[in-house]
Amino acid sequence: MDAAGLDNLRVVLVAPRNPLNIGAVARAMKNFGFRRLALVNPYETAFREARSAVDARDILAGAEQFDSLSEAVRDSTLVVGTTAVGHRELQLPLRRLEHGARIIKRRLARSPVTLLFGSEKFGLSNEDMSYCHWLMRIPTADIDLSMNLGQAAAVCLYELIRSPGAATSSQEKRKPALQADVDRVAGMLLEALHISGYVNSTTETSTVLKIRRIVRRMDITAADAPFWLGMLRQILWRLRENRE
Amino acid sequence: MDAAGLDNLRVVLVAPRNPLNIGAVARAMKNFGFRRLALVNPYETAFREARSAVDARDILAGAEQFDSLSEAVRDSTLVVGTTAVGHRELQLPLRRLEHGARIIKRRLARSPVTLLFGSEKFGLSNEDMSYCHWLMRIPTADIDLSMNLGQAAAVCLYELIRSPGAATSSQEKRKPALQADVDRVAGMLLEALHISGYVNSTTETSTVLKIRRIVRRMDITAADAPFWLGMLRQILWRLRENRE
Repeated sequence: MDAAGLDNLRVVLVAPRNPLNIGAVARAMKNFGFRRLALVNPYETAFREARSAVDARDILAGAEQFDSLSEAVRDSTLVVGTTAVGHRELQLPLRRLEHGARIIKRRLARSPVTLLFGSEKFGLSNEDMSYCHWLMRIPTADIDLSMNLGQAAAVCLYELIRSPGAATSSQEKRKPALQADVDRVAGMLLEALHISGYVNSTTETSTVLKIRRIVRRMDITAADAPFWLGMLRQILWRLRENRE
Repeated sequence: MDAAGLDNLRVVLVAPRNPLNIGAVARAMKNFGFRRLALVNPYETAFREARSAVDARDILAGAEQFDSLSEAVRDSTLVVGTTAVGHRELQLPLRRLEHGARIIKRRLARSPVTLLFGSEKFGLSNEDMSYCHWLMRIPTADIDLSMNLGQAAAVCLYELIRSPGAATSSQEKRKPALQADVDRVAGMLLEALHISGYVNSTTETSTVLKIRRIVRRMDITAADAPFWLGMLRQILWRLRENRE
């Protein structure tokens, strides 16, 4: 992977609690040449302690901090969540690391990708997963023991830099839309459904998550995004006007 | 790798000092299905503390302890040392992990192999290396920062169980929607845009074609089609109602 590809990867940790784990993720990033780390709602003391560690200090000093996952992923065109074995009913495609990493590598060659790790204790929530295009799992043998966060990150990052030059197939040449636009499409669609009475208070949460998922599955291209936004804007304008 | 192959691997740590690292190595072994751990001259308190950890307790409880490396490797037919980048004059062949692991896997199919990790502080000594057939290095980017012991072990063990076939497996098979449903989605969207005033007579034809194209590009799945149709039906119902 070239330098641009390495810099296109964003490693995002959701609510990490242990400074040693934060430090270990940063160290693995440095070991394998990646640089962009972001934390969503980290435990403040954990982040502070991690920053005082000596290894990979530059990565930790440059780490961004966000209050929400949607902000953290907004400049990515692909968001991949990592997960333990599927003991929960997954609504998303699940790919083994060997396969998923190939797809990620191809994308990194031209646009930003987020690799998402959940908190040590709870993993990724359904809400977190609704921002993911798909999930990737490390092929572990023991379903009762999750991987340590730092080790999971090391293994995923290693797979990404492994055997450079492989996987040059010409899948998906379409330039994907920014996640910020994908979220706007989902938000406008949701508002239209609200005004139309499709969403009610008991189904609200599940509908929101479902809409985010299916809009992500659309794989909107950068070229199509303005068109989608324009259409929805017009529909919304009309719906709002009629309401008055 | 089958169970006999997994059980043929001995992971040997030379003089480990940090109980967290010993625990992390055991955890990675358990994650990837390996069981035989041995320690040569561990710091006693570190080993005791590591044994009190809850994760991978069975592996730590079964870990053997030796006073010398020669005893630890005596039943193996191949001894491979792991090392950071070769800033020391190596007297041994040095193989990248991707290559070395392939050789190890073949050997594990029929006889015991030792994978050797040096102490966190000093790595493997020349004395330790004299017991190795060859050395294996994880392809890291940064020559000044060694890998953490637990992470290095996780990456090496992952490479051993990694399944290249999984990388070439066919794309996830989402069942696509019928074209009839895709056309209904496009038609309903077009009608909504008509009512909203998005489409006018001069742009009509090109808009129709464009909508068909972008709706096809959504790659709606069979499972999602009813959801899209339901949403659009509701929006249309509201738009029509307001028009009257």
